[in-house]
Amino acid sequence: MKIGFIGLGLMGQPMAGHLLKAGYELHVHDVVAASKQALVDLGAVECIDNKAVAEASDIIITMVPDTPDVQAALFSDDGVAAGLSPGKIVVDMSSISPTATTGFAERIEALGCFYLDAPVSGGPFGAINAALTIMVGGPQETFDKVLPVFEAMGKTVTLIGNRNGDGQVAKVANQIIVGITVEAVAEALLFASKAGADPQIVRQALMGGAANSIILENHGGRMLDRNFEPGFRAELQQKDLNLAMQSARELGLFLPAASAAHDMYNATRANGMDKDDHTSVLRVLESMANHQTSDGKKS
Amino acid sequence: MKIGFIGLGLMGQPMAGHLLKAGYELHVHDVVAASKQALVDLGAVECIDNKAVAEASDIIITMVPDTPDVQAALFSDDGVAAGLSPGKIVVDMSSISPTATTGFAERIEALGCFYLDAPVSGGPFGAINAALTIMVGGPQETFDKVLPVFEAMGKTVTLIGNRNGDGQVAKVANQIIVGITVEAVAEALLFASKAGADPQIVRQALMGGAANSIILENHGGRMLDRNFEPGFRAELQQKDLNLAMQSARELGLFLPAASAAHDMYNATRANGMDKDDHTSVLRVLESMANHQTSDGKKS
Repeated sequence: MKIGFIGLGLMGQPMAGHLLKAGYELHVHDVVAASKQALVDLGAVECIDNKAVAEASDIIITMVPDTPDVQAALFSDDGVAAGLSPGKIVVDMSSISPTATTGFAERIEALGCFYLDAPVSGGPFGAINAALTIMVGGPQETFDKVLPVFEAMGKTVTLIGNRNGDGQVAKVANQIIVGITVEAVAEALLFASKAGADPQIVRQALMGGAANSIILENHGGRMLDRNFEPGFRAELQQKDLNLAMQSARELGLFLPAASAAHDMYNATRANGMDKDDHTSVLRVLESMANHQTSDGKKS
Repeated sequence: MKIGFIGLGLMGQPMAGHLLKAGYELHVHDVVAASKQALVDLGAVECIDNKAVAEASDIIITMVPDTPDVQAALFSDDGVAAGLSPGKIVVDMSSISPTATTGFAERIEALGCFYLDAPVSGGPFGAINAALTIMVGGPQETFDKVLPVFEAMGKTVTLIGNRNGDGQVAKVANQIIVGITVEAVAEALLFASKAGADPQIVRQALMGGAANSIILENHGGRMLDRNFEPGFRAELQQKDLNLAMQSARELGLFLPAASAAHDMYNATRANGMDKDDHTSVLRVLESMANHQTSDGKKS
């Protein structure tokens, strides 16, 4: 089985590396020459463009930042679609719009090919350790064919539904919870601190009860250590909550906490923190609070 | 050691029961005669008012709904303060305003007595199983004296800080996280469902990643089972987030997700769900969405 991999960034590079280690013949392209070269040095075959990747591969994986990047990778003149022949499988592992995904899948299927959306969660740490959560939308038969490939990169692989876009829906739902919960922990720790308690002790006490979560444990700890290295960049959390807001508009949904959190990740940019970890919302909250003393007077 | 217990509701009744089982002589009062009788039947001594409880006890525990209830229990004419003599300890286990707590403590200490604020989390289930998380504010020496009493009712007992109000600060921080996270899970499951995915499968997939929390596991499961029995009543979650909003105003803090969640628990009342579980915010969200089909047209 020959696999193509397009998009060798912070996530794609370790994911593609696992496929090489698993023994797959791997054909790669990335617009950044150095990223491509890193995989070629590990034994991947270099392609001149995405069309060439599709021509050489049975399964073509895309792992790029956002909806327009997937559109360009698939449908530009030198894109994947131009190199496809019937029976090939396109697997988009990027986190993008569920509705745009439906359209991309239709165009790929019109060429006699198959499509899966398979976004991941777990970040670079999960990618490096082949421990990603992979949420898949598409036909069961296609899923079954690609499953061994997914299992080389992830730990929890779930076919969310048979409809293309279902994987992206699950990923957006995931990011609604993650984005809001990071904000919730930031608000709670800021509150505790400004109200005069020790936020370390408060966090420890709260970890013993219903407030506990992976985010209180991991992200909460990093907030108190003042470690804002990404991790998961605030600009990506912003992008993912923007997908939620777009879908909410399309579906006519009222998502007030997601909307409030979306605003906060927007504000990381105004504070020059959008390339830092998404826990930087804590520093945005602090920037709104730190000219105030506890009696409300200017300090 | 003689203990007084004031407030024998859903929480207070099982908590007081554990103190009887632990062998303490227990003096009780509740405005609801039947609630008081239930403890008397188990062996507690009946008191005619809160003053009589304070006169008969070394440690007086209050467990009532809100700030004004604690104020009345302590400082009305037949209240605890009227029955105190120097050296006694007042322990307020209600969840109330951190700043009001500071004032209550000062008034009790002015009588030559001691004060701890010791709110709990864990709900009726935690109370029944003596598994509460207890967050305490006050002097170390007083905490040490009361610790065996706390340990008869709770599993995780933490002295948050030596300042009265620190326990209440931790509890408010807890309720900020719990209230927002319940809303986050409701928004994510509603989104998944309205976007056409199976929310059961989505929740299962998300439990494998960074979105996981006690609330996604427990409350998320109850939401999908359409089980809105309390649990923790929406009106109490509303009260606790109102404490957060009051404190945010006093401290000059910007807490946008807590504010959005507070609005949602307010809206449970308009929908007649404020006596139901706090997971009822899901039904409020649905009530905003259910006249829409997925293509945005009126159904």
